[in-house]
Amino acid sequence: MKINGTHYRTIWLKEGNPDVLQAIDQRYLPHEFHIEDMRTVEEVARAIREMHLRGAPLIGSAAAYGLYLALLSPPEGLSNIWEYISSSAQLLLDTRPTAANLAHAVGRVLAVVEKEDKLAGMTDAALREANKIAEESVQHCRLIGQHGLELIRDISKKKKGKTVHILTHCNAGWLACIDYGTATAPIYAAHDAGISLHVWVDETRPRNQGSNLTAFELLQHGVPHTVITDNTGGHLMQHGKVDMVLVGSDRTTRRGDVANKVGTYLKALAAKDNEVPFFVALPSSSFDFSLRDGLREIPIEERNPDEVSYVFGWFNGKIYKVRISPQGSPAANYAFDVTPARLVTGLITERGICRASERSILKMFPEAK
Amino acid sequence: MKINGTHYRTIWLKEGNPDVLQAIDQRYLPHEFHIEDMRTVEEVARAIREMHLRGAPLIGSAAAYGLYLALLSPPEGLSNIWEYISSSAQLLLDTRPTAANLAHAVGRVLAVVEKEDKLAGMTDAALREANKIAEESVQHCRLIGQHGLELIRDISKKKKGKTVHILTHCNAGWLACIDYGTATAPIYAAHDAGISLHVWVDETRPRNQGSNLTAFELLQHGVPHTVITDNTGGHLMQHGKVDMVLVGSDRTTRRGDVANKVGTYLKALAAKDNEVPFFVALPSSSFDFSLRDGLREIPIEERNPDEVSYVFGWFNGKIYKVRISPQGSPAANYAFDVTPARLVTGLITERGICRASERSILKMFPEAK
Repeated sequence: MKINGTHYRTIWLKEGNPDVLQAIDQRYLPHEFHIEDMRTVEEVARAIREMHLRGAPLIGSAAAYGLYLALLSPPEGLSNIWEYISSSAQLLLDTRPTAANLAHAVGRVLAVVEKEDKLAGMTDAALREANKIAEESVQHCRLIGQHGLELIRDISKKKKGKTVHILTHCNAGWLACIDYGTATAPIYAAHDAGISLHVWVDETRPRNQGSNLTAFELLQHGVPHTVITDNTGGHLMQHGKVDMVLVGSDRTTRRGDVANKVGTYLKALAAKDNEVPFFVALPSSSFDFSLRDGLREIPIEERNPDEVSYVFGWFNGKIYKVRISPQGSPAANYAFDVTPARLVTGLITERGICRASERSILKMFPEAK
Repeated sequence: MKINGTHYRTIWLKEGNPDVLQAIDQRYLPHEFHIEDMRTVEEVARAIREMHLRGAPLIGSAAAYGLYLALLSPPEGLSNIWEYISSSAQLLLDTRPTAANLAHAVGRVLAVVEKEDKLAGMTDAALREANKIAEESVQHCRLIGQHGLELIRDISKKKKGKTVHILTHCNAGWLACIDYGTATAPIYAAHDAGISLHVWVDETRPRNQGSNLTAFELLQHGVPHTVITDNTGGHLMQHGKVDMVLVGSDRTTRRGDVANKVGTYLKALAAKDNEVPFFVALPSSSFDFSLRDGLREIPIEERNPDEVSYVFGWFNGKIYKVRISPQGSPAANYAFDVTPARLVTGLITERGICRASERSILKMFPEAK
């Protein structure tokens, strides 16, 4: 995708110096544009944990490159390379508990590294696999866009070309992936295909990934959109102002329970109550086929309560962190919730669209049986 | 209620000078404590419109005092007192469209003024009625507290004295009323009765009346509470962490449809989905017995989109207004939504608790038949 006319992915190896991993540092968007250099697995782990980069597909890719960086410069006098690889992997896995992509990507890199017996071979294998994961992510998002485009086209036809209104929560955009995005891929594809559409952007407290990132992406791409508070979607659906809800997922079980940014469940309830289709766009790497009951089994990250008590914003050319609750009032910060499969109209994957049921999911992903 | 040990109501006539109306200017809470002086109906109208004071019962009382101020100092050379009174009333009614209390209070003052034929008599009558409305509001809130206390006591008994967790949205506290509050009155009463309880405080974007005002009130009163984003309540209810939802109302129809701060409907859906009781606390002045279908008939205020694009917060001893979305991204700001009666477990009024149905409401308020 383009930022001010220049094409970017969210993460890449530095041109001319593949020992340095570079990524857009998303903490400063939309106000400032920063690129971060990472040279060690510790730096990658911190960037994931402290959300310099975020989004399930992106943190998967970042972790894969993190293992490559670990192998590229192991500590001197290392006695046991496997212990070192294993602890590096664990460091990455421990950064964030909810997204399936992290374990998926780390597992893939470990699998190819384990086949090698020399450090150079391991390093090369890790790099190849990390690159492959990133490329696959791009292709999967592109395909999700193509499949989702048809859904939007159908709604547009039913509305006789009148503007299609799509509500999205959080940022499942290209900033959450490598390129295209998951939930945004069909939106970009439909917009580029000339379909008239408009996006309601949930601001997505506490970290405002909607108003900070999704609005920024849509603005850069020229897609008509309106930022709303997270409280507003129900009212809009009650009044026929939403034709479709389209969100991403951090982890989806084999039965179709969807973990996504906290508040997604509330929008799914409102969609159900108002007969608005509720679709989840996700690549296969966001499935956790080992889980059935999302509510009981998916770990929900609790983050620093300061993310609730404070807001980052722009004033007079600078970013400020301002307090919005009284000193002395505690806060709690659950980062995700689980939308039960019964509220999900369908899942848009790189292989096509399926229902949020074990039968339908396993028909599309028979290797998970 | 007390602020730092001193008893306050939210609005009062200045001690020793009843020509001046004073009120807590809520725009600066919880960071700064300001009292505003108002001497004219225009100043009162601006204070309501720009939300120096807010909350359905409080804006009703403020409007009543506004008419008194209008009568206290009519413009010189006034030819038609009735035109003047009528335009003053309209000025107040036009400030905010959703709350029923505004029209209710203005109507009551007009009714007593119309019985007088001299300006002095009109002014005295307006003052008496405004004082009466304020006193009634205090008594109604106190009674709502007593009725609601029994509900909380029942839950506490069922839980064998374990902490009762109540979720509330926006501020239906004493700051929204004259004293006690509507939704908070049962909470204060239960806390004072020694029942162990804890309040989940929805921050309530865009204006953060939850994190700014409700948290401030609860902190001042010593009630255990935790501020959460508006996205979080569904997740908490899914995991059994909420025993009761308790909110206020800006207008409730004779069938029990409840207009309240935007986002209330989403919490009601989650409460229904998780079998959590959902109660609305309101004085009779918040009913609009002339309306049936809240979704179609209650006007929903749209406010300045800047309330969504910017956040007010505290940094280094000062209040800042910071931008949280990209320059160029439009925003929309619907201030209320309507929760259909089918999602409401019960209404807590000064006369007792009734179901959210026309039959049950009219049984409690037979004069509205």
